[in-house]
Amino acid sequence: MSTGRAEAFSDGVFAVAITVLVFGLLPIGTGRNLDARVLLHAWPQYFAYVVSFLTIGIMWMNHHTILAHVARVDRPLLVLNLLLLLGIVAIPFPTALVAEHLRGAGGTAATATVTYGLVMIVISAGFAGLWVYVVSHAPALGAALPPEALRSSIPGFTLGGAAYVAGTLVALVSAVAAMVIFGALAVYYLFEHLPSPGGDAEADPG
Amino acid sequence: MSTGRAEAFSDGVFAVAITVLVFGLLPIGTGRNLDARVLLHAWPQYFAYVVSFLTIGIMWMNHHTILAHVARVDRPLLVLNLLLLLGIVAIPFPTALVAEHLRGAGGTAATATVTYGLVMIVISAGFAGLWVYVVSHAPALGAALPPEALRSSIPGFTLGGAAYVAGTLVALVSAVAAMVIFGALAVYYLFEHLPSPGGDAEADPG
Amino acid sequence: MSTGRAEAFSDGVFAVAITVLVFGLLPIGTGRNLDARVLLHAWPQYFAYVVSFLTIGIMWMNHHTILAHVARVDRPLLVLNLLLLLGIVAIPFPTALVAEHLRGAGGTAATATVTYGLVMIVISAGFAGLWVYVVSHAPALGAALPPEALRSSIPGFTLGGAAYVAGTLVALVSAVAAMVIFGALAVYYLFEHLPSPGGDAEADPG
Amino acid sequence: MSTGRAEAFSDGVFAVAITVLVFGLLPIGTGRNLDARVLLHAWPQYFAYVVSFLTIGIMWMNHHTILAHVARVDRPLLVLNLLLLLGIVAIPFPTALVAEHLRGAGGTAATATVTYGLVMIVISAGFAGLWVYVVSHAPALGAALPPEALRSSIPGFTLGGAAYVAGTLVALVSAVAAMVIFGALAVYYLFEHLPSPGGDAEADPG
Repeated sequence: MSTGRAEAFSDGVFAVAITVLVFGLLPIGTGRNLDARVLLHAWPQYFAYVVSFLTIGIMWMNHHTILAHVARVDRPLLVLNLLLLLGIVAIPFPTALVAEHLRGAGGTAATATVTYGLVMIVISAGFAGLWVYVVSHAPALGAALPPEALRSSIPGFTLGGAAYVAGTLVALVSAVAAMVIFGALAVYYLFEHLPSPGGDAEADPG
Repeated sequence: MSTGRAEAFSDGVFAVAITVLVFGLLPIGTGRNLDARVLLHAWPQYFAYVVSFLTIGIMWMNHHTILAHVARVDRPLLVLNLLLLLGIVAIPFPTALVAEHLRGAGGTAATATVTYGLVMIVISAGFAGLWVYVVSHAPALGAALPPEALRSSIPGFTLGGAAYVAGTLVALVSAVAAMVIFGALAVYYLFEHLPSPGGDAEADPG
Repeated sequence: MSTGRAEAFSDGVFAVAITVLVFGLLPIGTGRNLDARVLLHAWPQYFAYVVSFLTIGIMWMNHHTILAHVARVDRPLLVLNLLLLLGIVAIPFPTALVAEHLRGAGGTAATATVTYGLVMIVISAGFAGLWVYVVSHAPALGAALPPEALRSSIPGFTLGGAAYVAGTLVALVSAVAAMVIFGALAVYYLFEHLPSPGGDAEADPG
Repeated sequence: MSTGRAEAFSDGVFAVAITVLVFGLLPIGTGRNLDARVLLHAWPQYFAYVVSFLTIGIMWMNHHTILAHVARVDRPLLVLNLLLLLGIVAIPFPTALVAEHLRGAGGTAATATVTYGLVMIVISAGFAGLWVYVVSHAPALGAALPPEALRSSIPGFTLGGAAYVAGTLVALVSAVAAMVIFGALAVYYLFEHLPSPGGDAEADPG
């Protein structure tokens, strides 16, 4: 099966998931009185929106890079891709938790942000699984990746996954600091110039 | 008419329908207090989300396989495709019923799960209809399918449809068991390695 | 500009608009008690869902047929297309009105159904406008349509538009009868075998 | 990286964002009584829907024109594109504010409309940034744009941005007048015939 329709379906899912984030903003300012203070008071909503938007965006780019390596997809790759999308589509859920509870009492804010971090860790594992599969089945998928691509990309996996684990641990102490870390991770990956298909560092789990 | 735009429209519908499932998760934890117990208490929501996500995902793959057999689409095929999509777009509805009532009193949980099963049976019939049409009009649609393709795929239809009927009957006794069956059906089809276009078992109704 | 990206955008809008219809079903059965009676009581929701789903589906097909005639699109065609989509995206709104008020007191049900009909009439005008533009600018758009295509398709326009006007008038007397007419119109167009691009009857306003 | 998948993702985001606008209409007329007066009373909802629909539509066209100039995209362009989409996806939020508060007390209506204008100004800056990047990296992106393209398009930028700033200032005095200006801006750009790729006026920030 060519990658075309798998990419089209994935692009659609990414596009809808990233747009669903705006539903978190829609209840803001629906009360009788609206002034700048009401709008500014909702800053956790905007903050969560921006962090998750950039996160899904960077994940879309990395997903694109991974699939650009292969000429065709097989059933196991489609299954791994579906499991990855299952995590990405869920992102608006922890985003809503964080937006609502970031200013809540300590335990409440921590629960929300830890949940956010756990979803990111699961998605990172999904990206790692997809990438390991692509590299280890490169010839069958029509990819030109050498076997060393996997080994040389392991540091990237470890770093990305460890950063999300670290952010999740920080969430136990400070929810805002954890969200800043998650946002910084997205920005970091946004501006990191990844090598074009054929290289070995593209699959840093989002 | 070439299959391109019919696939694009169908992919879009599948992508939106699968992403709409996250709206079932959004109300979780919106109360004042949020802790792990609140999040874990919502397990029927996650369970329903995962089962329906995998189900729509596998249906997308089977849909892809069916259309990959044909070189062009005609009006009746587009109509059958639309009727099939009518069922698939509705999936978030029984999913929400199950998520809300899985832990409810016996009759309530059964009603929700039976509704879920009935929608699946209708969709299975839709897949069967689409596949029968493709096989019986293979030459006109530019497909290389021999007439025996239909006969040899009948066991697959019967099995898939019967499994959903069985799950629906089980729902009368145990809603959770029925949902486990529906989830297992999706996982089974996910990992079953279907032959590439030209074979005869791809059209197992989802 | 080639038609490719205009079609991709339009397909996306159609796909999202048709899937948004499921949001009308989601509140069904969310109360404490769920039984078959509760589900069956919501029949206007299912009825409105099916009528609007088929209507948007047939409109997508007709849209496809119109754009299949042209090799490129220009700015005015994109504007007409956008105005048409403005009407189609709005369809879930009168659908929700009808679903909620179909069983309401006479005036209430009539108001909902007349609104539904008015939206359809506006969309029919949008289709007519798009088709008139395509036929009257056929050479510039790379279409092979002869000038007579417009004249010979006028009966189709008139009939389609008149049927929606008739349904809207019927709505003043019986809301259910009007919705049956709107549904029958969609089914009629679904099964009508339209000529392939180059013919003259494809642009019956949806 | 070719522009294909970046366009597909962007088209999907535009298509979903423009369709999300209908959620602003869905609560209309859900009360027990529905008559023409109830429907007409909701005119700010329709007005906000039309203005934002046309605005997103024209932005999609301008986005299309910008990307049509380049043969490939690089990482910084994808990042700028993502930041632009971050603003566009947010449009349903100020749209909802305006729809709810347009008839509110002076300060309330002004706050809503100023917020709308500020989002538009941010998006205009996003368009300007994307266009400046395309022009200044034209050879690397495979575009045939001469360096003067940037200089000659500066008046367009300034005018478009200034018009949104003016509308935002007007919002302090009259919310309705400001929305009329925002709507007129969209209509103006809709009917302005932009030169085809290779020209210099396409990037008027939406």
